[in-house]
Amino acid sequence: MINVLFAAKPDRWDEYEADLRTAFAALDLPVDLRTEFPAQDVDYIIYAPNSPVQDFRPYTRCKAVLNLWAGVENVVGNDTLTQPLARMVDPGMTQGMIEFVVGHVMRHHLGMDLHIHGQDGVWRDHVPPLAQDRRVSVLGLGELGMACANALSGLGFPVTGWSRRAKSAPNITCRHGEDGLRETLEQADILILLLPKTASTENLLNEERLSWMPKGAVIVNPGRGQLIDDTALLASLDAGHIAHATLDVFRIEPLPVDHRYWSHPQVTVTPHIASETRARTASEVIAENIRRGEVGEDFLHLVDRTAGY
Amino acid sequence: MINVLFAAKPDRWDEYEADLRTAFAALDLPVDLRTEFPAQDVDYIIYAPNSPVQDFRPYTRCKAVLNLWAGVENVVGNDTLTQPLARMVDPGMTQGMIEFVVGHVMRHHLGMDLHIHGQDGVWRDHVPPLAQDRRVSVLGLGELGMACANALSGLGFPVTGWSRRAKSAPNITCRHGEDGLRETLEQADILILLLPKTASTENLLNEERLSWMPKGAVIVNPGRGQLIDDTALLASLDAGHIAHATLDVFRIEPLPVDHRYWSHPQVTVTPHIASETRARTASEVIAENIRRGEVGEDFLHLVDRTAGY
Repeated sequence: MINVLFAAKPDRWDEYEADLRTAFAALDLPVDLRTEFPAQDVDYIIYAPNSPVQDFRPYTRCKAVLNLWAGVENVVGNDTLTQPLARMVDPGMTQGMIEFVVGHVMRHHLGMDLHIHGQDGVWRDHVPPLAQDRRVSVLGLGELGMACANALSGLGFPVTGWSRRAKSAPNITCRHGEDGLRETLEQADILILLLPKTASTENLLNEERLSWMPKGAVIVNPGRGQLIDDTALLASLDAGHIAHATLDVFRIEPLPVDHRYWSHPQVTVTPHIASETRARTASEVIAENIRRGEVGEDFLHLVDRTAGY
Repeated sequence: MINVLFAAKPDRWDEYEADLRTAFAALDLPVDLRTEFPAQDVDYIIYAPNSPVQDFRPYTRCKAVLNLWAGVENVVGNDTLTQPLARMVDPGMTQGMIEFVVGHVMRHHLGMDLHIHGQDGVWRDHVPPLAQDRRVSVLGLGELGMACANALSGLGFPVTGWSRRAKSAPNITCRHGEDGLRETLEQADILILLLPKTASTENLLNEERLSWMPKGAVIVNPGRGQLIDDTALLASLDAGHIAHATLDVFRIEPLPVDHRYWSHPQVTVTPHIASETRARTASEVIAENIRRGEVGEDFLHLVDRTAGY
């Protein structure tokens, strides 16, 4: 029997239990799945970083910690964690992110807000340019960033992608490094932030880098709130340089009701809905990783503890 | 020398002249392009249905009338027109239509309006379903309808398409006929109207057919205003059956300022901006048709005068 501890808040247990059992059965894995175990009996931990489990030392035979979330910033620095740590790369989350990003890019590209707000009888029949004339940049070319870059390219946008390490992809102009970041921002009529939160990405979009973007540019941030220097962004919006920001993630969530982002006319706050792990598809990924652990294959989506993601 | 009459309003001449000359030159066509000619000297007419040319009988040697617009309803019934009539199938217009349709489908799919309107500090963090769980139906599988159906299918939506004549396409559930129309509407969480305006499509979406659609369905009409029975649609919106309509085309344009569509909270009026013919790409299509006419090849995009499109 494989002992699997589900270490997340109770509402997640309600959401995941049935899908996990189905996924284990589909791979013929003899799993004992519980929310409590003596620590020394646990073979795998399915983990949410906000769970009560914060000291991994007692889990002496645990073969892997399988994160339920795409982001690992709240567990990657835990010094008690010596076991392999896997990020969640959930096809359902990736698909949801593509849909959010495509939707909000099209919204800004088409200038939809003018019509959604402006039902006043004025016939404002300016036809927007085609996608081929709207440059989109994506910061972060991981699972989510690359998927969004490809979807946008497929719709006709010229897409530039930037990542810390050099990458390449057909139909995407890939850049990296500080020089590459400047070029990427200079060409960003619409900018998508899908970087992980690490020490080197915190406040990445600061006053200077915002100034590199074209006047009238739009920012969409479904990544992490910490990627943006909020004071600098508000100043750039107030100055009329950045035209709009659609922000899905924040340093504090829910975003406090008196935060200027809520009241700023050039900001759309969305409440961390860009995408979420979907129980059915995520359970399949977890089951596959346990199968791999049992037969000695490499785990999928292992975190580079030094890089932080 | 090939004599080509440009029969459209003066602002179109300003928009098209340079692109047409470039397109003729690219195909080495010795064209004399003018806005006036003695009728009996004209070889081709580039035509907008709102031009002063309404009697085609004096154009005795004219080989084809090349419409600048996708819609031909204002010329197809002209009994003086005995020359071949070609619709405009402009790749630029098709691309623009894809962008408008994808954008507004994503807007409704993601429930964006809730957040665009609701910047009130309330954290409404309901995550929408994935595209795979949102059924989209497209009425009309011509150049524009098929292109939009394919783009939506590519984004993960299950797409049903309906057309008068039987068609087939990979990844699209194709239906036709009255039975097919009912099934198509019954499965339309989001409905796109891209039918031509003909006698048989006028008021196609009437009270009975609206009632076949699922409660809470959304309609996007970038096709023709006459496809919808406006009174029936307003009644269905008022009754809470149809949840929203985004309408780009109307029986009278600009839509009169006192029309209920402007003030209805469940209607978004967009001012006939879904797509338009783009001078550069349309000029290339016109030049190609003239080349074909000169060497005796079949014209592209000929209108079936009986079907009306």
